[in-house]
Amino acid sequence: MTTGVRRRMGVEERRQQLIAVALELFSHRSPDEVSIDEIAGAAGISRPLVYHYFPGKRSLYEAALRKAAEDLAARFEEPREGPLGARLLRVMGRFFDFVDEHGPGFAALMRGGPAVGSSTTNALIDSVRQAAYEQILAHLGVSAPSARLQLVVRSWVSLAESTALLWLDGRRVPRAELELQLVHDFAALAAVSAAYDEEMGDVLRGIIASEPPDGPFAELVERLVALAPLPQGSA
Amino acid sequence: MTTGVRRRMGVEERRQQLIAVALELFSHRSPDEVSIDEIAGAAGISRPLVYHYFPGKRSLYEAALRKAAEDLAARFEEPREGPLGARLLRVMGRFFDFVDEHGPGFAALMRGGPAVGSSTTNALIDSVRQAAYEQILAHLGVSAPSARLQLVVRSWVSLAESTALLWLDGRRVPRAELELQLVHDFAALAAVSAAYDEEMGDVLRGIIASEPPDGPFAELVERLVALAPLPQGSA
Repeated sequence: MTTGVRRRMGVEERRQQLIAVALELFSHRSPDEVSIDEIAGAAGISRPLVYHYFPGKRSLYEAALRKAAEDLAARFEEPREGPLGARLLRVMGRFFDFVDEHGPGFAALMRGGPAVGSSTTNALIDSVRQAAYEQILAHLGVSAPSARLQLVVRSWVSLAESTALLWLDGRRVPRAELELQLVHDFAALAAVSAAYDEEMGDVLRGIIASEPPDGPFAELVERLVALAPLPQGSA
Repeated sequence: MTTGVRRRMGVEERRQQLIAVALELFSHRSPDEVSIDEIAGAAGISRPLVYHYFPGKRSLYEAALRKAAEDLAARFEEPREGPLGARLLRVMGRFFDFVDEHGPGFAALMRGGPAVGSSTTNALIDSVRQAAYEQILAHLGVSAPSARLQLVVRSWVSLAESTALLWLDGRRVPRAELELQLVHDFAALAAVSAAYDEEMGDVLRGIIASEPPDGPFAELVERLVALAPLPQGSA
């Protein structure tokens, strides 16, 4: 950005540039470790000019977060074609790409605290959770979910978040394995819930019926069946 | 507390009384909805006297939270006797008791934001998560868990949190059902992880072998087996 000849940018273009620069910085460190001076330097403009566009660091942080939230929500979008397991696996791949790209910033945000917590940031986090929730329901082909089905989908979204956060802390399990594990987790949580809810059972049977024999759901069932006979013999 | 004759309390006794009164108020509303005046009134003392013991509302809030955190951590303690499923079910019962008693305060805290988020509150939340994690590992009889086993236990603790928060929002699913569902979820997440981790597989086989035929784990396996044959036929 800091070339010899400084091109004049329009107002909106400059705002977008500042947001992109800020997002890059906020992705790699917690917001209290990033200064307006640093953002100005990275954007190749003066500190006062940054304040011309944004009243302060919090407003710039929130604008960067809004952009990241839109990006993340879009990653849950997936054509409604083919088996669900494969679709979820692609979604998880894009979700972990995002977490990988924005690791420290994602962790700082999700762990909350005074540097990042506000009603605006909470609302942005909730907007992404809601978008993910709605996408998954759409893939399940359900428009009026029961309370239990809502709970399964929302708690799975929350499980994906916490699994990604735990992964970021040391990255001791390969992410590809966790992406597949989360798809299996979805099937497992749905199967548990199906024990209580006929609608959930129908949804699950529909999913399983359209899975290929080498898909992630079929693989899980095979593994569970391998574990399952044990208690019958030992009980 | 406001009796006709006001008994003189010792310093520590008065502090404990204020903490108990504050915890009761903070349990039922978000901290920004509770005033020092109200705490003073409920404790039967003057507002200046509250400030004599605590410099401000935040410090009183954090002291109340510390007490709640100790209480909650203690609820994960359970004798290491009998089948694991039954132990976990008792722990979940006590966990939901806590969530039930402290509902709005628990929700405000876990949802974060400026009224409740601070490095102190985050550290208290983490201390409870850590206590729960260590208790569960102790019940599994594992002292040096693999990265995958750590992830299963920590993500299950996180699932219990998010399930409780979702339950609080409308209470549309009976809590007894969710307590049992979380025990099943533990078995399901462990089963999924066992596909990747031999240690996890051993732990799970050990658990299943000591379960009674009418215990929560055996019940889950039965339900999964009932769902499982489907893909084999349809694939």
